[in-house]
Amino acid sequence: MPPHLPTTMRAAVLHGPERLVVEERPVPAPGPRQVLVRVDAVGTCGSDVHYYRHGRIGDFVVDAPMVLGHEPSGTVVALGPGTTRHEVGGRVSVEPGTPCGTCTECRLGRYNLCPRMVFYATPPVDGVFCEYAAVHEEFAHPVPDTLGDEAAALLEPLSVGVWSCRKARVAPGDRVLVTGAGPIGLVAAQTALAFGASEVVITDIVPQRLALARELGATAVDVSSTPLAGLSYDPDVLLECSGVPAVIGDAVRAMARAGRAVLIGMGGDEVPLPLAKVQNYELEVTGTFRYANTWPTAIALAASGRVALDPLVTHRFGLAETERALTVGAEDPTAIKSVVLPQK
Amino acid sequence: MPPHLPTTMRAAVLHGPERLVVEERPVPAPGPRQVLVRVDAVGTCGSDVHYYRHGRIGDFVVDAPMVLGHEPSGTVVALGPGTTRHEVGGRVSVEPGTPCGTCTECRLGRYNLCPRMVFYATPPVDGVFCEYAAVHEEFAHPVPDTLGDEAAALLEPLSVGVWSCRKARVAPGDRVLVTGAGPIGLVAAQTALAFGASEVVITDIVPQRLALARELGATAVDVSSTPLAGLSYDPDVLLECSGVPAVIGDAVRAMARAGRAVLIGMGGDEVPLPLAKVQNYELEVTGTFRYANTWPTAIALAASGRVALDPLVTHRFGLAETERALTVGAEDPTAIKSVVLPQK
Amino acid sequence: MPPHLPTTMRAAVLHGPERLVVEERPVPAPGPRQVLVRVDAVGTCGSDVHYYRHGRIGDFVVDAPMVLGHEPSGTVVALGPGTTRHEVGGRVSVEPGTPCGTCTECRLGRYNLCPRMVFYATPPVDGVFCEYAAVHEEFAHPVPDTLGDEAAALLEPLSVGVWSCRKARVAPGDRVLVTGAGPIGLVAAQTALAFGASEVVITDIVPQRLALARELGATAVDVSSTPLAGLSYDPDVLLECSGVPAVIGDAVRAMARAGRAVLIGMGGDEVPLPLAKVQNYELEVTGTFRYANTWPTAIALAASGRVALDPLVTHRFGLAETERALTVGAEDPTAIKSVVLPQK
Amino acid sequence: MPPHLPTTMRAAVLHGPERLVVEERPVPAPGPRQVLVRVDAVGTCGSDVHYYRHGRIGDFVVDAPMVLGHEPSGTVVALGPGTTRHEVGGRVSVEPGTPCGTCTECRLGRYNLCPRMVFYATPPVDGVFCEYAAVHEEFAHPVPDTLGDEAAALLEPLSVGVWSCRKARVAPGDRVLVTGAGPIGLVAAQTALAFGASEVVITDIVPQRLALARELGATAVDVSSTPLAGLSYDPDVLLECSGVPAVIGDAVRAMARAGRAVLIGMGGDEVPLPLAKVQNYELEVTGTFRYANTWPTAIALAASGRVALDPLVTHRFGLAETERALTVGAEDPTAIKSVVLPQK
Repeated sequence: MPPHLPTTMRAAVLHGPERLVVEERPVPAPGPRQVLVRVDAVGTCGSDVHYYRHGRIGDFVVDAPMVLGHEPSGTVVALGPGTTRHEVGGRVSVEPGTPCGTCTECRLGRYNLCPRMVFYATPPVDGVFCEYAAVHEEFAHPVPDTLGDEAAALLEPLSVGVWSCRKARVAPGDRVLVTGAGPIGLVAAQTALAFGASEVVITDIVPQRLALARELGATAVDVSSTPLAGLSYDPDVLLECSGVPAVIGDAVRAMARAGRAVLIGMGGDEVPLPLAKVQNYELEVTGTFRYANTWPTAIALAASGRVALDPLVTHRFGLAETERALTVGAEDPTAIKSVVLPQK
Repeated sequence: MPPHLPTTMRAAVLHGPERLVVEERPVPAPGPRQVLVRVDAVGTCGSDVHYYRHGRIGDFVVDAPMVLGHEPSGTVVALGPGTTRHEVGGRVSVEPGTPCGTCTECRLGRYNLCPRMVFYATPPVDGVFCEYAAVHEEFAHPVPDTLGDEAAALLEPLSVGVWSCRKARVAPGDRVLVTGAGPIGLVAAQTALAFGASEVVITDIVPQRLALARELGATAVDVSSTPLAGLSYDPDVLLECSGVPAVIGDAVRAMARAGRAVLIGMGGDEVPLPLAKVQNYELEVTGTFRYANTWPTAIALAASGRVALDPLVTHRFGLAETERALTVGAEDPTAIKSVVLPQK
Repeated sequence: MPPHLPTTMRAAVLHGPERLVVEERPVPAPGPRQVLVRVDAVGTCGSDVHYYRHGRIGDFVVDAPMVLGHEPSGTVVALGPGTTRHEVGGRVSVEPGTPCGTCTECRLGRYNLCPRMVFYATPPVDGVFCEYAAVHEEFAHPVPDTLGDEAAALLEPLSVGVWSCRKARVAPGDRVLVTGAGPIGLVAAQTALAFGASEVVITDIVPQRLALARELGATAVDVSSTPLAGLSYDPDVLLECSGVPAVIGDAVRAMARAGRAVLIGMGGDEVPLPLAKVQNYELEVTGTFRYANTWPTAIALAASGRVALDPLVTHRFGLAETERALTVGAEDPTAIKSVVLPQK
Repeated sequence: MPPHLPTTMRAAVLHGPERLVVEERPVPAPGPRQVLVRVDAVGTCGSDVHYYRHGRIGDFVVDAPMVLGHEPSGTVVALGPGTTRHEVGGRVSVEPGTPCGTCTECRLGRYNLCPRMVFYATPPVDGVFCEYAAVHEEFAHPVPDTLGDEAAALLEPLSVGVWSCRKARVAPGDRVLVTGAGPIGLVAAQTALAFGASEVVITDIVPQRLALARELGATAVDVSSTPLAGLSYDPDVLLECSGVPAVIGDAVRAMARAGRAVLIGMGGDEVPLPLAKVQNYELEVTGTFRYANTWPTAIALAASGRVALDPLVTHRFGLAETERALTVGAEDPTAIKSVVLPQK
């Protein structure tokens, strides 16, 4: 470790449901082809909140103390042996998962499905609500200075949007329906526009979210008052971000022939699928699991201003307030995205 | 009409549920770019049986007397004005639907989704349980003499198999699961092998169907005794031909990462979809509605012997026995496919 | 013909190389599913100029008097029998080719390759340097009032841009090289940006074209002074609009691994292909022939302002001046696109 | 190293053009996730011959003594630390290149384009004309006992065939032209048939090669007497295996609309491309560079008998005769493929 760097750092550690403790931990040493990143901003995600509340998501159980957080941006402060792509001082957005690189899924280019994936804040792997992280240099993506630390952190949810639009093959001229105007819906809608969609309708029932969606270029529909069936067109693409079974069903039934539906929102083990509609219209239905090869595109979209990430950030907290970052969303209906700033 | 041709013909007309009457009707005159085809063989399909029993399929209601049958082969006996691709005496397999050719769906090449499609034996369009039919010359596909009349008729179900394998992108090396060993399952399994699938498992509970499946090259599994979970591999592709909701669910849950599921069997308005599996494995799920651009491939597969159609034909009837052709399947568990021979 | 319409009209007829005569011709009557369009604007194209100069393009020879022009917009003034999509007074952009709709190419959705295509101003089919045209209603595309007549005419070259970007699979994040900043290069560059390309470099040697390219959002490079090898990146996509063999070779050699090169500019029967580069980098090389299914996307791109067409129009002429519209480009280096306004 | 294994082995080392010396070298120790493979058979390839004759291929120069050979099969005789997929005694076919696994190309699934690729017998990496090799366990592919050692070695050229047919998107019903009936042409033709091609014509001028092509299921055409233009159909797919510029041109000119041409044979830096044909027919032209993700498919095709590899082996040599294996092809016109058996 270079002499000017500290040997310990603070980390927000989950010891069990609703038991988050800020502790001292050793600063990791960067291994071969790794860089040490000073973490400058970390977005909070629904999965962080879920682990915090329940100590588990489905089969993934937090058995031992674990650091949450998987949407980091930061600054390279040290280089491990063999690194070639970075210099100290470079600003980066960090892809939170490192795949094995040699299994069948990795070799086919769908590394998000790698069964050996090591992914931040997925038990038992520690996340990045902490001050430093060691990262394989190929998964620390340089960002231009036009992108702030918070936007650089939010390249992770933007990656979900990019991946979804790729899965949906969104193309110029497409008419797109996004269901749910949370952080993912808001990036998905913007991404669809950046992919050339000619019309993007986004639905929700929270006025603040709908207002922000409008600002970001989508047509926002309040489905508490307007039924989905009242759409002025049959969407070619559905980006489903609510996870609500009834919404999924209604949205699929609204689609145009040969439409593509991507189910992004988590909605439990099983949902009803409108089979006859899927058959008669030859709809394609798929789901997403994280993302692969999205960072360069996400950086390009955010850096060119085609997608705006800063407006999503409604709350900011220092590392000592990480618990507050995870709970504010449940209390404040205007909250969209909270960011933890570990250096504060 | 050429002088040697009759002016009237026999046709099996449905007048209401379970009321099929053989009547005299005029022989149609071939219009511009049409050929007149003497119908030599017509396969019977589950949809014919359903219309016969219930007078409707979902929203499609037989309001007026209608001829059933949509899997014809025959011989060109007269040429309408402007035909260029046929000679009198040529043997053909007839594609049962004629799309409009100019709408958005047609121009995109997915003419099976044409909202103006005119399709045999779909109300109010007459089918081909009759002696002659006038057909647009581009939808009457010449067949080589190595293909008999019955096999030429069965190019229609083979087209369903081809279309399904295309939708599933079956490729050499794929491991395929086919659920249901009825006529469609049996052609789908053979087609998957012809597309290069390295392993094809087909499931059913009827011993005769399983035995035939084995003869045709698939691994047949009796799911009345062996659970689907006992498969030796996770299938890359599912060709679902049963339409049974529980089978669909079990089969989707068995699939490999990035697998493609094609739902062919009709199973009602809605079925449960294993959402978490679809997301975590990024499965693609789609359905089929008829087919497009399949005949040349189907002809090549059947003519080269890669797919065997004749073994599927278990029963043959003259036109006067059309009703019997539609009811034998319910009575005889060994029945796979009945064919009507209108010239007999 | 409705009584308020004239029975004859003016048309600019080519009688041989450089012999263009404005004559009276009958106004066509709209046939089944056709609409009669009053032609309001027609773009001039390099192929019109070539026919005017030489009376032929390759094997296509103008043997009999023929009207040139194939980029029309106009207004529906009468409806033929069976039309369902139009009303009198509607403004339309007209797709210049009508395919047969039933051949193999049409049914596969690549109707631009239809061997029976009837295409304006391709011998022996008359074009639309005239006052009225009868058009199949599905090939007369309604345009919003935000698009002027000239922009509506220029949807034809924009379609070339859309088709090229589809062939190249331009996607967000791609870096694109466009060689040649004529009308096609300028729409191709804009289309690439609308498809999400993160960087678009366009090359030419004419200062006015490069200046316009810059205004339209591309990075313009004067290759009379800057060598192509000096690009700051290896392009993922090449949209070749020059047709110059040396440019094609240099541009292909500059490409990134797995790049896609689309050869749009006509460059004669044969050009040298950098084979070793194509192999070692697994480049894809293809060419375009007109377009298919592009109008709805082109309308969306132009109507939303993602692509600007009006800046391309540098010269306007009445029908009597059609000859001038075809010759001005050779004399005036600042000319980009001339439009004929037949009602003037 | 396990005590029963030798510490040194024989290797055929190239010291300069036409200077091949069998030397003693240390047996490599398997590193983390590597297995030690006893090499049982190695195919000889045109590139081995070229390095042997000239000491270089283009920019790749043999500067220091190097072992040739890159088509090995063998038996696992020792396991390095962390291996999970193999047992001692397992028979394997070895993929000759190991990519970095983390660069952009690798992560996109096109690891054959990895700029850090380590590939046998490509300077400065030693090949496998030797008795033992240490191999990353994911690149040592288990083969069933139905495949002999020589066939297991020839999975490497079969991989070229599989990769080419994937690039060409060969599908059931396609008509395919293969130009050149050397080892690659012969596997490409068989692979095309296994992908479902309905017709495969292969051209050459050597009677023995044409005779073997016929035995393997293709239609063989002697182009020394029959011109290519005499084909009974326009091919949808061209698999160009000759590398001869005139053949490439003639074959491309023969293709059907929307055809796909894959240029496999190396033919120098530049060849003439029929541009007008490529444009008017919208042909796709691409090249191949090695392969990616092909072994599982190649194993399935060979193990099921869909592709026959053993008939290609016309000559066999012990390790001491490696030089003879590299020179016999030039002397014996009946030679197709020579195999080196290092244990002999």
